[in-house]
Amino acid sequence: MRKNISLEEAQELLMEHCPSLQTGYVGLQDSLGRVLAEDIVAKENIPPFARSPYDGYALRAEDTVKASPDSPVGLEIIEEVPAGYAPKKIVLPGTAVKILTGAPVPEGADAVIKFEETEVKDKKVLIFSKLKAGQNVVPAGEDVAQGDKIACLGAVISPPLVGLMASLGITEVPVYERPRIAIISTGDELLDVYEPLQPGKIRNSNSYTLAAYCRELEAQPFILATTRDKKEEVGLRLIEALEKADMVITTGGVSVGDYDVLDEAMEYIGAETLYWKIDIKPGSPNLAAVKGGKVILSLSGNPAAALVVFHLLGVPYIKKMAGRVDYLHPKIEVTLKNDFSKASPRRRFLRGKLRLEKGIAFMEVTGGQGNGVLHSMIGCNILAEIPAGSGPLQAGSKLSAFLLD
Amino acid sequence: MRKNISLEEAQELLMEHCPSLQTGYVGLQDSLGRVLAEDIVAKENIPPFARSPYDGYALRAEDTVKASPDSPVGLEIIEEVPAGYAPKKIVLPGTAVKILTGAPVPEGADAVIKFEETEVKDKKVLIFSKLKAGQNVVPAGEDVAQGDKIACLGAVISPPLVGLMASLGITEVPVYERPRIAIISTGDELLDVYEPLQPGKIRNSNSYTLAAYCRELEAQPFILATTRDKKEEVGLRLIEALEKADMVITTGGVSVGDYDVLDEAMEYIGAETLYWKIDIKPGSPNLAAVKGGKVILSLSGNPAAALVVFHLLGVPYIKKMAGRVDYLHPKIEVTLKNDFSKASPRRRFLRGKLRLEKGIAFMEVTGGQGNGVLHSMIGCNILAEIPAGSGPLQAGSKLSAFLLD
Repeated sequence: MRKNISLEEAQELLMEHCPSLQTGYVGLQDSLGRVLAEDIVAKENIPPFARSPYDGYALRAEDTVKASPDSPVGLEIIEEVPAGYAPKKIVLPGTAVKILTGAPVPEGADAVIKFEETEVKDKKVLIFSKLKAGQNVVPAGEDVAQGDKIACLGAVISPPLVGLMASLGITEVPVYERPRIAIISTGDELLDVYEPLQPGKIRNSNSYTLAAYCRELEAQPFILATTRDKKEEVGLRLIEALEKADMVITTGGVSVGDYDVLDEAMEYIGAETLYWKIDIKPGSPNLAAVKGGKVILSLSGNPAAALVVFHLLGVPYIKKMAGRVDYLHPKIEVTLKNDFSKASPRRRFLRGKLRLEKGIAFMEVTGGQGNGVLHSMIGCNILAEIPAGSGPLQAGSKLSAFLLD
Repeated sequence: MRKNISLEEAQELLMEHCPSLQTGYVGLQDSLGRVLAEDIVAKENIPPFARSPYDGYALRAEDTVKASPDSPVGLEIIEEVPAGYAPKKIVLPGTAVKILTGAPVPEGADAVIKFEETEVKDKKVLIFSKLKAGQNVVPAGEDVAQGDKIACLGAVISPPLVGLMASLGITEVPVYERPRIAIISTGDELLDVYEPLQPGKIRNSNSYTLAAYCRELEAQPFILATTRDKKEEVGLRLIEALEKADMVITTGGVSVGDYDVLDEAMEYIGAETLYWKIDIKPGSPNLAAVKGGKVILSLSGNPAAALVVFHLLGVPYIKKMAGRVDYLHPKIEVTLKNDFSKASPRRRFLRGKLRLEKGIAFMEVTGGQGNGVLHSMIGCNILAEIPAGSGPLQAGSKLSAFLLD
C-alpha cells in the first residue's frame, strides 16, 4: 500500500480500476442526461428536402434575369404547396409555384421570392427584381447532413441532442447503465436524520450529501445503514455494498486513531488497499481499496474534507465509469476576490464560487474553510489550488482551479 | 394586442401573469433540485457540542502555563471519551481526559493536545508545551450556529443543503410544486418520431427538445399530440392543455402567412393575446396569450428561433413560476472567439459556448446561426447580444451575454 501520495497518483491508481458498465437502450424521452454508448450518425438529412423559409413563390432564378421595378417579369402560378405537402408539378421556364413556409421547393425551381415583394395579376406573379440561384432556399441537410456524426460515444445527452435524435427518428437511444453507488457512513457518533440529538452524537449528513451529488451525476446512489467503528461491522457492510453496487463510498475512520478502522476492515475482507492519505488539505486522510474489481473510496468523516476529495477523485471516477469522455474537471485560472489569510504549508484546495465580472473569472470564497464546515460547499463550483509553501493570499491573486459541474 | 415590442417589454408582460404554485413537503432525499418554499433556519448548532478534531487529551490550558520540554506538566488521566459518547467526568485542575476525534470536549476542559505531542507515564499524560484556551477545540456551531438562516425561500436545493438539512434533522422539506408544462407542436408537415419520412414532411423535434429543457428545469413537461394548421384544432388542443397544465408552450404557426393560425386560435378560445412579435433575431415571430390566468407561449416552428426565445422568455418565466428567486439569467461580458461575418440590422442573439481561457470569458460560436439550425444549440450555454445596426464582428469583439444554466 502506498502512503501520502499526490492527488495525481491517487487518481491514476483509481482510474486503473475503472470498469466499463453495461450498455442498453432507453426511450428517447428518458435519454436526457444519460451517456451515449455509440456515436449517433445521421441516416437522413435534416431537413430532408430543400424548403422555403418564407411564404412566397418558388421559381427559376434565370427567369428573373431581366426583372426590374419598371419592367417586371410575369410567371404563371401553376400550383400552391403548403408545408407538409409534396409539390406535384415541375417548375418549367415561365412558371412559378406558390409556396408556404416550410414547404419543399418544387423540382425545377432554385429560388424563392417573398410574397410581399411580388404582385399578382391575371394568375401571374410579377417579379420586380433579379434573384440569385439558391436565394431564399434552405438546402436539404442545412442543419445536419446525412452521414454527419451528431454526437459521439461518451457524450452526455442534452436537450438539443434529444431534439436532433427526434428529427432523425431515433426512438431508442444506446446508453451506458448508470453506476450504482453504495454509500456508507461509519462512526459510533452518528445518528440518522430522524433521530433526536443525544449527548456526544451528531446526525449523519455525509451520506445524504454524497447521495445527492451522485444523483446530480445521474448515478444511482443508495445509502446503507450507518456502521459502528468496528472493523468486523464495517467489513460486513462493505461486503453487502459490493454485492449490490459498482462502487462503494464510505466516510469516517480513515485517520490514524484508535477508532480508525477502515484500513483494518479492508484487510479483514481481503480488499487490496491502493493508497492511504494524499498530500492535500483538506481531505488528506482518505484511502482507496479494490476488491473483485470494484473500488471502495473511503473519505474522511469531516464533511468538507470528505466532499473536497469526493470532487477531486470520486467525481472524475464516477463520470469515467458512467462512460463519459469529459470525465476530468476543466482546469481554469481565477482571480481571488477575497483575501485568504492562512498560510498553506501543504497543497490546499479552496472552496469558492465562480463570478464572471467584466469578462474576468473571479473566485469568491464561499465561507469557512475548516474540515468540518459543510455550509461553504453551498454554491461552491470551484476548487482553487494553493501551491504548498504559500503564504497568506491577497485578493487579486491568480490561482489555478478546477471547475466543478 | 401589442406588436413588435422589445424583449424586455415582452418579459414584463409575461411576468405580470406569473402565478404562484402550491407548496408542499417532500422527503429529504427527494428534495434535491426542488425550490424551497420557506427559509430554513437552524434550530440547533452544527456541530451541537464543542468537539476535538484530533485524538488527544482534553485539559485546562491554565494547567500547562509552566510546561516546557525540560519540565513537562503531568496531568492525571481520569477518563477516555471516544466519538459518540458523552464525558462522565469534569476536568478539574491537574486532570485530563483522553479524547478521540469527534468526541465532545468535557466540562472544565478548554483545550486539546494531540496524542503525538504527549507521553504517558504512570497513568499521567505529560505535556511539554503551553496551550492556549480554545486550542484544538472545534466550537459548537462552527459550521452553522443555532438561529442561522442556512437557505432562503426560493433557493434551489443543492447537495450540501441536503446534507445540512440532514444534520439538522429535517426529514420533510417545504418546497414548491413543480410547474406542469404542456407542449404542443403545430404544423401539417409534422410527423412523430416513430414515423418514417414522407414527401414534404419532417419529424417533430421541438416538442422533444422543449420537454427536455423543461425537465432540466425540474418542471413537469408533457407532450400533446401534434396539431394541424387549423385554428379550431389548435384551439381545442389549447383548451385540453390549459386544463392539465400551469403553462402551455406551442411551436409553429406564429408568422404572418396563410397557415399561421395561432393568433386566430387564441381569439377562437377567448384567450387574450399579450403581444405578437418581438424585435430580435432569431425568433421574432412569437406571441404570448393568457386565458384563465395561465400563459400560452407560442414560439416559431423553426427550432433555433423557438429555442432562443424559449431561453430568453420561457426559462425565466418557468423559473419564476417554480418559485425561484434567481429566475433571470446572469448577464456577463464575453470576448468573441470567432469572426461573425453577418451584419445585424436587428438586435441579434448569437448561440455560443463559454470558454474560460487564462481567466478571460470567451464565447465560441457553436455553429450555424440559421433559424432552422438545431445542432448549434448543442453545447450552447450563452446567448450573446449584438446590438441592432452592428456590422460584421471580428474575433476579439466584446459582447454582453446571457449565461444559460
